[in-house]
Amino acid sequence: MIDQLIAKLEGIYPEMVAFRRDLHMYPEISFQEEMTPKKISRYLKELGLDVRTEVGGRGVVGVLKGGKPGKTIALRADFDALPIQDEKEVEYKSRIPGAMHACGHDLHTAALLGVAKVLSEVKEDISGTVVFIHQFAEELTPGGARPMIEDGCLDGVDVIYGAHVMSTIPVGTVGVCEGYASTAADEFEIVVKGKGGHGSEPHLTVDPLVAGCQLVLNLQQIVSRRVDPLKSAVLTVGAINCGSAPNVIPDAAVIKGTVRTFDEETRTLIEEAIGQIAKSTCDGAGASYDYKYDRDAPSMWNDPAETKRIEEVAISLFGEEQLERISPMMGSEDFAYYQKEITGTYFFVGGGNPAIKATFPHHHPKFDVDEEALLTIGKVFIASVLNYLSDGRIRP
Amino acid sequence: MIDQLIAKLEGIYPEMVAFRRDLHMYPEISFQEEMTPKKISRYLKELGLDVRTEVGGRGVVGVLKGGKPGKTIALRADFDALPIQDEKEVEYKSRIPGAMHACGHDLHTAALLGVAKVLSEVKEDISGTVVFIHQFAEELTPGGARPMIEDGCLDGVDVIYGAHVMSTIPVGTVGVCEGYASTAADEFEIVVKGKGGHGSEPHLTVDPLVAGCQLVLNLQQIVSRRVDPLKSAVLTVGAINCGSAPNVIPDAAVIKGTVRTFDEETRTLIEEAIGQIAKSTCDGAGASYDYKYDRDAPSMWNDPAETKRIEEVAISLFGEEQLERISPMMGSEDFAYYQKEITGTYFFVGGGNPAIKATFPHHHPKFDVDEEALLTIGKVFIASVLNYLSDGRIRP
Amino acid sequence: MIDQLIAKLEGIYPEMVAFRRDLHMYPEISFQEEMTPKKISRYLKELGLDVRTEVGGRGVVGVLKGGKPGKTIALRADFDALPIQDEKEVEYKSRIPGAMHACGHDLHTAALLGVAKVLSEVKEDISGTVVFIHQFAEELTPGGARPMIEDGCLDGVDVIYGAHVMSTIPVGTVGVCEGYASTAADEFEIVVKGKGGHGSEPHLTVDPLVAGCQLVLNLQQIVSRRVDPLKSAVLTVGAINCGSAPNVIPDAAVIKGTVRTFDEETRTLIEEAIGQIAKSTCDGAGASYDYKYDRDAPSMWNDPAETKRIEEVAISLFGEEQLERISPMMGSEDFAYYQKEITGTYFFVGGGNPAIKATFPHHHPKFDVDEEALLTIGKVFIASVLNYLSDGRIRP
Amino acid sequence: MIDQLIAKLEGIYPEMVAFRRDLHMYPEISFQEEMTPKKISRYLKELGLDVRTEVGGRGVVGVLKGGKPGKTIALRADFDALPIQDEKEVEYKSRIPGAMHACGHDLHTAALLGVAKVLSEVKEDISGTVVFIHQFAEELTPGGARPMIEDGCLDGVDVIYGAHVMSTIPVGTVGVCEGYASTAADEFEIVVKGKGGHGSEPHLTVDPLVAGCQLVLNLQQIVSRRVDPLKSAVLTVGAINCGSAPNVIPDAAVIKGTVRTFDEETRTLIEEAIGQIAKSTCDGAGASYDYKYDRDAPSMWNDPAETKRIEEVAISLFGEEQLERISPMMGSEDFAYYQKEITGTYFFVGGGNPAIKATFPHHHPKFDVDEEALLTIGKVFIASVLNYLSDGRIRP
Repeated sequence: MIDQLIAKLEGIYPEMVAFRRDLHMYPEISFQEEMTPKKISRYLKELGLDVRTEVGGRGVVGVLKGGKPGKTIALRADFDALPIQDEKEVEYKSRIPGAMHACGHDLHTAALLGVAKVLSEVKEDISGTVVFIHQFAEELTPGGARPMIEDGCLDGVDVIYGAHVMSTIPVGTVGVCEGYASTAADEFEIVVKGKGGHGSEPHLTVDPLVAGCQLVLNLQQIVSRRVDPLKSAVLTVGAINCGSAPNVIPDAAVIKGTVRTFDEETRTLIEEAIGQIAKSTCDGAGASYDYKYDRDAPSMWNDPAETKRIEEVAISLFGEEQLERISPMMGSEDFAYYQKEITGTYFFVGGGNPAIKATFPHHHPKFDVDEEALLTIGKVFIASVLNYLSDGRIRP
Repeated sequence: MIDQLIAKLEGIYPEMVAFRRDLHMYPEISFQEEMTPKKISRYLKELGLDVRTEVGGRGVVGVLKGGKPGKTIALRADFDALPIQDEKEVEYKSRIPGAMHACGHDLHTAALLGVAKVLSEVKEDISGTVVFIHQFAEELTPGGARPMIEDGCLDGVDVIYGAHVMSTIPVGTVGVCEGYASTAADEFEIVVKGKGGHGSEPHLTVDPLVAGCQLVLNLQQIVSRRVDPLKSAVLTVGAINCGSAPNVIPDAAVIKGTVRTFDEETRTLIEEAIGQIAKSTCDGAGASYDYKYDRDAPSMWNDPAETKRIEEVAISLFGEEQLERISPMMGSEDFAYYQKEITGTYFFVGGGNPAIKATFPHHHPKFDVDEEALLTIGKVFIASVLNYLSDGRIRP
Repeated sequence: MIDQLIAKLEGIYPEMVAFRRDLHMYPEISFQEEMTPKKISRYLKELGLDVRTEVGGRGVVGVLKGGKPGKTIALRADFDALPIQDEKEVEYKSRIPGAMHACGHDLHTAALLGVAKVLSEVKEDISGTVVFIHQFAEELTPGGARPMIEDGCLDGVDVIYGAHVMSTIPVGTVGVCEGYASTAADEFEIVVKGKGGHGSEPHLTVDPLVAGCQLVLNLQQIVSRRVDPLKSAVLTVGAINCGSAPNVIPDAAVIKGTVRTFDEETRTLIEEAIGQIAKSTCDGAGASYDYKYDRDAPSMWNDPAETKRIEEVAISLFGEEQLERISPMMGSEDFAYYQKEITGTYFFVGGGNPAIKATFPHHHPKFDVDEEALLTIGKVFIASVLNYLSDGRIRP
Repeated sequence: MIDQLIAKLEGIYPEMVAFRRDLHMYPEISFQEEMTPKKISRYLKELGLDVRTEVGGRGVVGVLKGGKPGKTIALRADFDALPIQDEKEVEYKSRIPGAMHACGHDLHTAALLGVAKVLSEVKEDISGTVVFIHQFAEELTPGGARPMIEDGCLDGVDVIYGAHVMSTIPVGTVGVCEGYASTAADEFEIVVKGKGGHGSEPHLTVDPLVAGCQLVLNLQQIVSRRVDPLKSAVLTVGAINCGSAPNVIPDAAVIKGTVRTFDEETRTLIEEAIGQIAKSTCDGAGASYDYKYDRDAPSMWNDPAETKRIEEVAISLFGEEQLERISPMMGSEDFAYYQKEITGTYFFVGGGNPAIKATFPHHHPKFDVDEEALLTIGKVFIASVLNYLSDGRIRP
């Protein structure tokens, strides 16, 4: 059965490419998606799926009820673009100034629609239900995953899969990562508020610059002393800005940084430790401060059993040498919110190809991927869905 | 003789005020003085002095040869304005947008011209020579003092006096300071050059932000550990700027600061120590750096004997209660260059008067002083000149 | 076959206990073992094994050649004691002042001898060879493992197993850890050499105390900035000693610390980074320094397949609930040297039992374990050896 | 009159030397003086003075009432020795093991007794009263000055002079210092109390070592940022001791230091700032702390007019070239307590002489001075006393 569906998918490859290029030419950035969800819902409706729009705001959810009873599996693709000016020279270059699909979400969407089309053609043979979650606003906090979940997109769903194309992995390859697969990526800002004055009279001031620098150094001790050495964590101060003239002691220093963690315990420990150290450092200097800590998506936890399923499916489809076991990403992905609710896994699909200049990193103005990745995503999704719904009996 | 000259000076008070207000309305900022030196040289020539213009660039030097032989004394007034928008509401407010006599140099000039006028009237009775040094560009490094000296303004001069009106001292008061009277006020800039990258991958970067903060803290040890505790020194970092995004490790940090010292030994020690610490801190971080140290004017050394003379003259003229022994200024004054060459002293004259809102600090957009200060400066100059040239015989 | 051997082992339990208590009463500390290896070699010789003594110094190796051809497996037990005064109140308390088996090596030895006895009784049925490695000096760098390897104890050996009893794990439990199972535990010492003087004249000194403190803080950045966040590392400064009088600036500061890492790349990175930071910090202070970094045993890498074998054997023998998957130890174990040469795994066996006061941590003067652990170690060894030599066919 | 008295003083030089050498051979350390005050009081009584013993404990005060009415002047000499083993090779070497006059107090005492003898011989001609204050325990906090003052030694006294012989100044020279002449020399101790643990598990501890080092660095900012740059201050940490093993995180760090200041405002500022920084640094680390600050003698303030008197007297007696204007000492001298009560000045007298190996610093086991200093001290005292009591009429 899988072979037949894969042949069908290959047959609609031109259609998937066309859909992807249309999205690529008319990108819509996070929380401003208007046309994209309409295009998606029209496509899904034409396939005969139950389609719900404006899910959690701008999301689209299509439900394919199989002809036989069974479990429910969700597949998720995100569809928002980035506020980046497209600098590629290709015919399907972005027509929208300052907006670009520089992370491959156009591909995710087109591949998932292709999967929907192929599966809908064998609907009656499917035991269970497949839910197609087309998510808006993955790139921008607070993201679209949470409102879509709150609006019921996971109701009755047993398991969820997601995929991401990567220009940094060769096209044709599938990457899997068991357990923690991405970090929580939070941001913080501390404003150290002293009392400015003339540089020649430090004793009449409360110097926020020296206090700010001391704070940055004190923060180093969180990772070096307070975090369990067996747990990973990064605390980076990305910016300190204080003063402009050489001879004037400024009133305030602004410090901004990012925190990456896997487990919630370490995450909370760091959030609190920053606050404690900001307070004590400023107390010592006689300064006051503001501290703001913004939590982005949590870390993704890829269920070992489901990750194993993707791994075995990928090896069967493409061979052992096309499978890569990869390290966790030190960035965040709001697919993590779905995984907080139900079992799931998130895998990676190669899109890099030097022959067509698909070598630039994600979020780069010249980012592109090899469209063959549409087939890789689609094939893994189809085979995994059938394997899951058949309790492993249907194999590629 | 002094009483008579002081009466003359009081007689030309309206003329001094008029000259001062004319300068005040048409201020010219440092190194851009065109009309001001012309007005001065015209005035001095009318008095019959030997006048040399374009001294060292834009300076004016008038020489009054007394009728009898004797020593040579120089009096110096600066005449440049500041790039500040005048926000006072007075009839003589600056007519030049973005330029203002916000430090009282207009007053210095008018008072010195008054002194020249009064002394020129008794020229024949004077034993010795009085040199009137009207200096350009006191406010802006490298200043006018050095080129005027190189152009010979001190040739044959035995001693030099200078004065500064202060809005922070009540009008009528004379302030003296024996020994060190101002600091050298130098500036430095250090650029810490690392290797930027993503905030989640510090191990692939050379973090200039942490190195920069560490450098700021290490610099604190110069004053706390390396400078002789019996010598005064200030090292203030006024600015650190590094990065803008919370999650990106930047390429470089820019640090700017000021150094205030009295003696040259400490000054050089600090200049070298900053370099040593910048090097070692960057070495430790694997970063490179640029270090620039700009020396402004050195410290003023007020000759004790000449300062005593001013003090005694002031007490005789105005009474003990009008004399204030003040602490050294922690800022620089390029009068120091004259004092590097010959004996001299620099004193302060009160100009503050709440009744006429002359209470704002120097360089403030609403700065002003009580014009009675013209008389204070003039009287001290006249009496001190005569006292000096008579070897102390002529007293007020 | 396994059941039968286990019954035999249980039969010689009193003998194992006796041997263990004899060692316990007459402990010999690392590199001073005289009688212990003699007792071991005598026992092994009586079993009819090929015994080699003074292996790499004080080690004993017994070889049991099975009746049938096959692979060669080594089992290792260490036999040295610690320079600790025994404070337990038991009949088998140490008779040697200042020496004590406070880490359980007496048990390891007795258990391994029991295994040798049981296996030697079925020698003819064994396919392959079992090598019994009795190692001296595990507790003290440079340890006995390396010289024993250099002296050929692993020649022809295919795989090696080791075990450690733990008072912190309940008796009856088996603990396994796949992959990294212990750290490299290195030590370093830095002497910061300044120039002392009187506390009131810091400018005439090179202050090693401030430089030393700064060095300690700078070292925090190694873990926080330079180590890959996905890799574990600890750098702890355990001692700083500098000066004694409040008003005298001392000549030197002595800093001592420990470094724990898993992979060699990170280990070398830290060793070098400490040197770089020591150099730059001392350069900045005008001080000189000595830096010494002593590498102890590397980290243990427990082969996943062999660890799985131990795990399955243990579950079969004792049930799933008696198996604990444990985190890597942050300390070192010189079993790691064997694992650098050949495939191997190292597992843990519970010895804790509050009922008999076996609750004190290792190296504590009251340390003891439940002797039932002799059976646990012995059973796992016997079953694993047979499983390994039969390519998994013989199972418990 | 002065000439005649100076001749008398020179006449009793052998007697002064003898007295000094007797004290030198039988030194008594601070707060243990028994025989020394007895010798002094016997001598003074023989001169016919009113003598009070056990003043404030072990002090001796002799009063010489002149024949004519007038003011009252006090002269002070200290008489305690140090707990140092004498290593000189001279005939008058200390006979008391572990005790030595290594600071010249024996000389001070002998010189003052000589002055008493000379003045007592012309008692009737003196207008006013001379009080001879022989003080115990100058070397050891809390010192003898305060209890002697509390016991009335300054009652009715108008002015006080003190002198110190210096091996670092050539014999024959008199050193004067107007205004601040010594610092307050205080000591502090901070114990940082964390929670120890194993070096491999910093996250389970509160590391007092890193907190202690951070505290030492934070303390640098007191002098660099908080003290008025025109005021002198030293804060030196002389000792930090924390931990002994490289791999154990200790429970506590002990930090000791000294603070030198001139004015009370800065002294209090520093005492409080240390407390604030200790608190905030420990708060930031989650540690607690103890902080103890011990105030020793305050700074000496040499009255300008009386210092001028000593200066003029010295120049008249010995010539301008024998007068040295010296910098303030960065150490403390409890003569300061007298100066807190009444006007006074403290001067220095040269005792250095390479020809007789009088070149070692004070408190050195080979310290000695040229005994000619007895005459220098005596002459300045005699001439200054007469000059003071005659309102300047009697001059040398």
